[in-house]
Amino acid sequence: MATAKVWSGRRQYEGLPKLDDFVLKEEVLPPLKDGEILIEALYLSLDPYYRLFPVKDGLPGEQVARIIESKAPGFPKGALVCAHVGWRSKSVIDVNKPLGLGIKVELIDEVPGLSPSLWIGAIGMPGVTAYMSFLERLNPKKGEVIVVSAASGAVGSIVGQLAKTQGLVVIGLAGSEDKCKFIEEIGFDHAINYKKENIASALDKYAPNGIDIFYDNVGGEIRDTVYSKLREKGRVLVCGQISAYNEPQDKVANWYMPIVRKELEIKGFYIFGDKNVKEFPRVRKALVPLFKQNKLKAKEHITNGFENMPKAFIELFTGSNFGKAVVKA
Amino acid sequence: MATAKVWSGRRQYEGLPKLDDFVLKEEVLPPLKDGEILIEALYLSLDPYYRLFPVKDGLPGEQVARIIESKAPGFPKGALVCAHVGWRSKSVIDVNKPLGLGIKVELIDEVPGLSPSLWIGAIGMPGVTAYMSFLERLNPKKGEVIVVSAASGAVGSIVGQLAKTQGLVVIGLAGSEDKCKFIEEIGFDHAINYKKENIASALDKYAPNGIDIFYDNVGGEIRDTVYSKLREKGRVLVCGQISAYNEPQDKVANWYMPIVRKELEIKGFYIFGDKNVKEFPRVRKALVPLFKQNKLKAKEHITNGFENMPKAFIELFTGSNFGKAVVKA
Repeated sequence: MATAKVWSGRRQYEGLPKLDDFVLKEEVLPPLKDGEILIEALYLSLDPYYRLFPVKDGLPGEQVARIIESKAPGFPKGALVCAHVGWRSKSVIDVNKPLGLGIKVELIDEVPGLSPSLWIGAIGMPGVTAYMSFLERLNPKKGEVIVVSAASGAVGSIVGQLAKTQGLVVIGLAGSEDKCKFIEEIGFDHAINYKKENIASALDKYAPNGIDIFYDNVGGEIRDTVYSKLREKGRVLVCGQISAYNEPQDKVANWYMPIVRKELEIKGFYIFGDKNVKEFPRVRKALVPLFKQNKLKAKEHITNGFENMPKAFIELFTGSNFGKAVVKA
Repeated sequence: MATAKVWSGRRQYEGLPKLDDFVLKEEVLPPLKDGEILIEALYLSLDPYYRLFPVKDGLPGEQVARIIESKAPGFPKGALVCAHVGWRSKSVIDVNKPLGLGIKVELIDEVPGLSPSLWIGAIGMPGVTAYMSFLERLNPKKGEVIVVSAASGAVGSIVGQLAKTQGLVVIGLAGSEDKCKFIEEIGFDHAINYKKENIASALDKYAPNGIDIFYDNVGGEIRDTVYSKLREKGRVLVCGQISAYNEPQDKVANWYMPIVRKELEIKGFYIFGDKNVKEFPRVRKALVPLFKQNKLKAKEHITNGFENMPKAFIELFTGSNFGKAVVKA
């Protein structure tokens, strides 16, 4: 009988997780049934997103593990797997059943020269995230300027390197001199230490014509600053928001996280943009017949008298206005 | 010599605009030069976006006006124009020079049966906004469910009606029984009085399978609720944020307004979405050679010892982590 060490949560986190929130136990594992394997963790992944899950459901976690006993064809003893089994040193798993996050155990190759740990990192979830979201969703083009937040992190460092392979100008934001040095070494064009430098001025220096793409996994104040430097029709990719994970759960669960979880697409529209303004006459021509044919109806809120303009303006914000506000002179 | 009445701002607004923030003066207009016209306001537009501009630059404002004197060929006396001249009863303008927001004066048709006031409303900026942003940017499809906030407003009421012409299910949010009744009368399928009803429950009732499109001009708490009911790959169009306009200027100028002004496109990405998870093996295969060829490099932050998992997890949020966090068992 194998014995596993298992970390579990003592209580739900409040704010930053604390050592005391965790408890380590031993667990005697049952003998293998058909279709099951016994695995032993080699490398365990830790990712910020773990913070978002209720600990009562068990700590989520992926690991690279070695099969030390097998009753499952195709999963030989000695082979390596990736498995979402939580914070466990050993586990008995059914190879045909979904594990955490609905993902089944996956056999992985041992590639000479590459550490198996990469399969939970740069060739695992974070690397796959970077590849799919950046290369396959953002349509990056040579010469564009990208800003990557959390640039030395598991996802950001791969995004920046992939961006270089596509010929983009890559600016990374990181929180220490060491991290900045690292991202420059792996090929980022510019590194900004957001704890020391003024981000806005640094962006003005490195991207005087503005930013085309913002790969944002941080949110908060950094997001505000980068948004203000984006060019027209700039694109933003969000697949995490570490600045929010330790906020109270009702805030984490608010509008921003659905953007990630549901892969929402949000588009801004500015009617006074140069190109849009030029299309006014065309669109007006399309609208007139719709009104003449009574397919569209308009509600107007007409206030009589030029002298009443301020009053009518204020009513726009107090809810007493109803329909398009117009003052008849 | 004509005399104009002109409203100007006494001081920059703080919070909700107040009557005392405005001052009315008389202004003697100069005689016409070549290329100029004298116009008299018939209908003056009031729009929430006016709140965002510094009053020291003059109050922005569009009007439908009649030409009462002309020295500009093609702009005959008696014709109607739309002009961004601010809050003025009469104005002298050069027909070749851009006015407020860079838009030149525009001759408009008098269409029997349609009030000229519509050219600053449903056939003007708000109507054109609705048409272009909804029909030409959102790719709406028959059978989809759209939620329109500020549904009885100048933009929202047209969006909802256009959505009906495309065969969508249209749910409108408005702030009074009268407004709800109105949007039902013009063809919305459902109206929710957000001041009285629980928005989340009402949405569950009218859109049990979730929402495809959210046309959001309001922001704030209403946004949070609707986002939580959006379907996967839901689309959001933002062209205004009335809930934010009366906040302090530094907040209005923050990250949300650039979405509108620059027509940004924001995409969420969720690696654990069913479809994405299925693509892990394909993407891993693409990543491995990039690492083998040294085109990509990975930084790992390895903590030794299964017992140190909580400590390593906490470090993800304190900035001491550097690279992909891995625990070696």
